[in-house]
Amino acid sequence: MTRKRIIVLLLSLSFALLFAGLATAQTGDSLPSWNDGKAKQSIIDFVVKVTKKGSPDFVPPAERIATFDNDGCLWAERPIYFQLLFALDRVKTLAPQHPEWKDQEPFASLLKGDVKSALAGGEHAILEIVMATHAGMTTEEFEKIVKDWFATAKHPKTKRPYTEMVYQPMLEVLAYLRANDFKTFIVSGGGIEFMRPWVESVYGIPPEQVVGSSIKTKFEMRDGKPVLVRLPELNFIDDKEGKPIGINQHIGRRPIASFGNSDGDLQMLQWTTAGQGPRFALYVHHTDAEREWAYDRKSHIGRLDKGLDEARAKGWTVVDMKQDWKIIHPLEN
Amino acid sequence: MTRKRIIVLLLSLSFALLFAGLATAQTGDSLPSWNDGKAKQSIIDFVVKVTKKGSPDFVPPAERIATFDNDGCLWAERPIYFQLLFALDRVKTLAPQHPEWKDQEPFASLLKGDVKSALAGGEHAILEIVMATHAGMTTEEFEKIVKDWFATAKHPKTKRPYTEMVYQPMLEVLAYLRANDFKTFIVSGGGIEFMRPWVESVYGIPPEQVVGSSIKTKFEMRDGKPVLVRLPELNFIDDKEGKPIGINQHIGRRPIASFGNSDGDLQMLQWTTAGQGPRFALYVHHTDAEREWAYDRKSHIGRLDKGLDEARAKGWTVVDMKQDWKIIHPLEN
Repeated sequence: MTRKRIIVLLLSLSFALLFAGLATAQTGDSLPSWNDGKAKQSIIDFVVKVTKKGSPDFVPPAERIATFDNDGCLWAERPIYFQLLFALDRVKTLAPQHPEWKDQEPFASLLKGDVKSALAGGEHAILEIVMATHAGMTTEEFEKIVKDWFATAKHPKTKRPYTEMVYQPMLEVLAYLRANDFKTFIVSGGGIEFMRPWVESVYGIPPEQVVGSSIKTKFEMRDGKPVLVRLPELNFIDDKEGKPIGINQHIGRRPIASFGNSDGDLQMLQWTTAGQGPRFALYVHHTDAEREWAYDRKSHIGRLDKGLDEARAKGWTVVDMKQDWKIIHPLEN
Repeated sequence: MTRKRIIVLLLSLSFALLFAGLATAQTGDSLPSWNDGKAKQSIIDFVVKVTKKGSPDFVPPAERIATFDNDGCLWAERPIYFQLLFALDRVKTLAPQHPEWKDQEPFASLLKGDVKSALAGGEHAILEIVMATHAGMTTEEFEKIVKDWFATAKHPKTKRPYTEMVYQPMLEVLAYLRANDFKTFIVSGGGIEFMRPWVESVYGIPPEQVVGSSIKTKFEMRDGKPVLVRLPELNFIDDKEGKPIGINQHIGRRPIASFGNSDGDLQMLQWTTAGQGPRFALYVHHTDAEREWAYDRKSHIGRLDKGLDEARAKGWTVVDMKQDWKIIHPLEN
């Protein structure tokens, strides 16, 4: 290449870079699925504040930790938690290997299609179902089971794949924060190994940034190859008081921003906002009976009662789904 | 600015960038404290292999996870684990508040300066000392205690601050991997909250990339402010079989490279190398009685016996500290 050609090439490159830079700076709206209003503005104000160099509110990138609940915050949680729907499907798949389930609750009711009776046993029944369907295999086997389920299962109401039941406006918040050098984490009551196989492609959150509930595992050698076997024994419940504990255990640094939708997230939001310096807390309030579901203080799933009071008392952002979100799920234009 | 000046400016910038690029590519030695030899070459070969685009061994950056043991791998572990020396100092500090310790082992012996008798009780004695010194305060209080200790405590033999007892050649490996888009994690039997306050500044590893042993914590409101109180109850032992379990729990992705120095790291190295695609495992072998310590198969601390056999059988890299390292600690030129 002649020197002249090199110069021309570099010049073109320079201009391309220059215009790319201008284009980025001018890109107006990082949250296009949000209607203009207090909620949207509060997110932008916070991000501008902590990223402005020289400002007293500036937070170094390493400390820009944001944590997100999953069920009801990043994706839907109705009619019941999707992980429970996964477990119910697993019971049906595994039934031929468990003839004893025909006479044994909660499995007997489940297999007759009577979910309500099956879950009448409350937490104990759910735990039995989870352990029967989530334990007894290696971590690699479980990952494949989860992936296979997500590849074919459909939401009972919308008939869409579960990975499309995510909230488009929240995907935009995740991307907006990361574009501003935040590290985004999931902190969910859901199973950590139920989320990891798909959250990287759907949310852009890598497995090492997922905190969740878990069962114990055991290291074993099988044919000279190490495996981790999933045991029917609870390890950690990442809900309510468990969320700050899980955050401390896993992240070891207090978030500066947290996003939730229920009383199960309240302690996480308290923990986040109790830190020094600028803090941000947001509740997604399910107010849209038409496009999604409307529920709060009296719901069994995703109850938002104490949290709603505390949010109002402390001036946290409360998203009114019906008013604040132009669309709920992706591809809804 | 005239158009001509802009062009000149951009041209200079382009050339600067071009030469910066060339300079980087030509930077010969990312591991200057390593003598040329098989160990050093094996690290470079692996990194070149997995970062070469289009090669069948290419690993996408998101999957470039490298895990490092801490004691004896990133810093020294003699005469005894530094965390135990911290605990012994804490016993002395706390003794006035615990008059009962005068007649109670292992504290009585410790306070008389008889460490050997105190530790004669083995694991049980150590656990008692750790719980008495590591629990009962909030996570923030403990962090301050750890930071204060590191600010003044000196290694009994070298009289250097403990944070200077790190291995310079391993600092270079950490930086070299990160420069090649690896994410570096600590996976240590040491206490997770004992490491987090200083590893970011010393190793460049953020708290969320530290996996370690832990005790349980409890969420509490104190004067309307949430705190996490450290409880005298074991949560997780991140050693031997615990290392793959901790890696799975915390990272959720199998490392492609692991670094250790003892049989306590063997399962981590087995777990790492059992994955598909290119893998790397390295043992630091303490062979330098003069500049450091020499120990392996018969040592109580950092025993390397089964691991040494397996490393040789499987062709893992074994670093001969005496031969392979030009200097041991920083500032030793």
